[in-house]
Amino acid sequence: MTATEFEKVTIDLGDRGYDILIGSGLLADPASYSGLPLGTDALIVTNPVVGALYGRALRTALGSNYRRVHYAELPDGEAFKDWPALNSIFDALMTAGCDRKTTLFALGGGVVGDMAGFAAACYMRGVPYVQVPTTLLAQVDSSVGGKTAINHPLGKNMIGAFYQPVRVVADLGVLATLPEREVAAGLAEVIKYGPIADAAFLDWIENSLPALKARNTAALAHAVRRSCEIKASVVAQDERESGLRAILNFGHTFGHAIEAGLGYGEWLHGEAVGCGMVMAAELSMRMGLIDTGCVARLKAIIERAGLPVRAPALGADRYVELMRHDKKSEGGEIRFVVIESMGHAAVRAAPDALVREVLLACSD
Amino acid sequence: MTATEFEKVTIDLGDRGYDILIGSGLLADPASYSGLPLGTDALIVTNPVVGALYGRALRTALGSNYRRVHYAELPDGEAFKDWPALNSIFDALMTAGCDRKTTLFALGGGVVGDMAGFAAACYMRGVPYVQVPTTLLAQVDSSVGGKTAINHPLGKNMIGAFYQPVRVVADLGVLATLPEREVAAGLAEVIKYGPIADAAFLDWIENSLPALKARNTAALAHAVRRSCEIKASVVAQDERESGLRAILNFGHTFGHAIEAGLGYGEWLHGEAVGCGMVMAAELSMRMGLIDTGCVARLKAIIERAGLPVRAPALGADRYVELMRHDKKSEGGEIRFVVIESMGHAAVRAAPDALVREVLLACSD
Repeated sequence: MTATEFEKVTIDLGDRGYDILIGSGLLADPASYSGLPLGTDALIVTNPVVGALYGRALRTALGSNYRRVHYAELPDGEAFKDWPALNSIFDALMTAGCDRKTTLFALGGGVVGDMAGFAAACYMRGVPYVQVPTTLLAQVDSSVGGKTAINHPLGKNMIGAFYQPVRVVADLGVLATLPEREVAAGLAEVIKYGPIADAAFLDWIENSLPALKARNTAALAHAVRRSCEIKASVVAQDERESGLRAILNFGHTFGHAIEAGLGYGEWLHGEAVGCGMVMAAELSMRMGLIDTGCVARLKAIIERAGLPVRAPALGADRYVELMRHDKKSEGGEIRFVVIESMGHAAVRAAPDALVREVLLACSD
Repeated sequence: MTATEFEKVTIDLGDRGYDILIGSGLLADPASYSGLPLGTDALIVTNPVVGALYGRALRTALGSNYRRVHYAELPDGEAFKDWPALNSIFDALMTAGCDRKTTLFALGGGVVGDMAGFAAACYMRGVPYVQVPTTLLAQVDSSVGGKTAINHPLGKNMIGAFYQPVRVVADLGVLATLPEREVAAGLAEVIKYGPIADAAFLDWIENSLPALKARNTAALAHAVRRSCEIKASVVAQDERESGLRAILNFGHTFGHAIEAGLGYGEWLHGEAVGCGMVMAAELSMRMGLIDTGCVARLKAIIERAGLPVRAPALGADRYVELMRHDKKSEGGEIRFVVIESMGHAAVRAAPDALVREVLLACSD
């Protein structure tokens, strides 16, 4: 088999650096997995839906590199991003007698990636793992940058680790089987990179939304590559989110509150982030940073992507309570990623009164 | 209050480096905790036994540095080094609304230290923690070096992280309240540093056993300091145990099998390690590395320290099965730390037949 064509984005983190391969047909190509750390065992972590579609292809592709390829399926969905599901990965590893040279392969979306990554971070205090993201959202966001976690009943992604994969294999071909709602959710994170880092990219997205929604391969390739490039640059400057990296959470403070308030899984993560970006833009406007035209434009793009732009009616008190548990909070003060001008973001504390105005303006 | 006198050993790990303070009266002295990362909240993690003895003193000492000092007690003992107990730390942190600047204080022995350290590694993907070890074993071994973990039903310390504390405060005064059996268990890890790294230290231990068992402060201070120095040097060379660091596990492959085979908590960790060192020395001898005199001398020191030197009768097959799950195993091959000459250790695979000879010779 000849190697599939691909583009490569490198995350520059010294001895924790790695490549993101982007192209069509990469998942089933053994060449995508060459040069990984040596070991006798691999474990594919996936869910029943993705496993049925791509499990066999990945297994076959890995067959030549590992003596044994194990397989573990997690229940599908954010609601199961919890300890019992994480522990089922440890059970699979222990039962199969997997050693510390075992490589984990996260085959799926953000939930599978976060859990397989966190399991890899913890198993025997750390084994290698590869991200094979099968959703647009995972390809442009969650599989890159080494954030892994499970949820706590009182907050999302509260228990986890910064732990980098050894490779990310983003196969654009798999996006063809993605439900429309999942494509829109992925576009939320693509759109995000515009306001926080690259105004020209937002222009391109604005013009390319029809092509992206039609899953045009060239458009998807550009969206994934540029998103990964921006994320790579931010992560390389601030791996453990002590400062700059927090801007990647634009829309996420409001978004997480929506997800937690409705119960995880009711809205897709990307949907909550889409709506959260509208709210964060509204907040930026009310803080005097951007004008109403800017907010209206971003809102229109998010709506055209097929994402919700009005938040569910949880009540302002509940929103504020949920946001106090956000990881960016410090000393009880809620901090938000705001837009200072299109393409430039910052983390700021916001007066409670302004936040409540935003909640009133943006929710049902 | 004037600062208490102490000796200092530095772990040289760049931006993850930290100091070990060793002295009498350090626990209750606020000066022991100066210069730590700033934050509004602290959480003391302890168990009911240690908490009753020292919880109030630590709380008072921390009162001037933190706006809120929270308190969580874990059930006492290796049998509870599991997910539910770990999760109770997360519950305490979340319920109190602790942010990512919260510092955890591990007040107790190895179990408390391993769990509080792992909780700190995972909470919001990493918050600072301080080790305040209250057993000799924790002061000379588990609280230094950043190994944190919980147990899996199929193996000890299988789920964890390499995550360094920001300080270790080893108060020799607390050793006065330690049960005799716990002192002996701590001496096992002190003795360990002789055969693996420092023959002269083993001579000193051999002569100082009566003073150590009588808890002479000067003798304890030297034992703790020299142990920490050796461990610091090994850890600085190999933080993540890709090579050299494994020698710190001398006696641990056999020892872990004893602990797992009897059920965690039946023997103390140090007791299992003491007996495991006799077995590892016996294996070294049968591999032609050291002579029988060497084995006999080490065995006599271990026995004089008050530790068991004969392994429980689990049957050779069971021992081998348990040891295959050891983290040093690779590709199904069990690897042991052996003594090449007094003061020099290495990691080697051993023929199954030799291992079975050792089990036959050393167990009831």
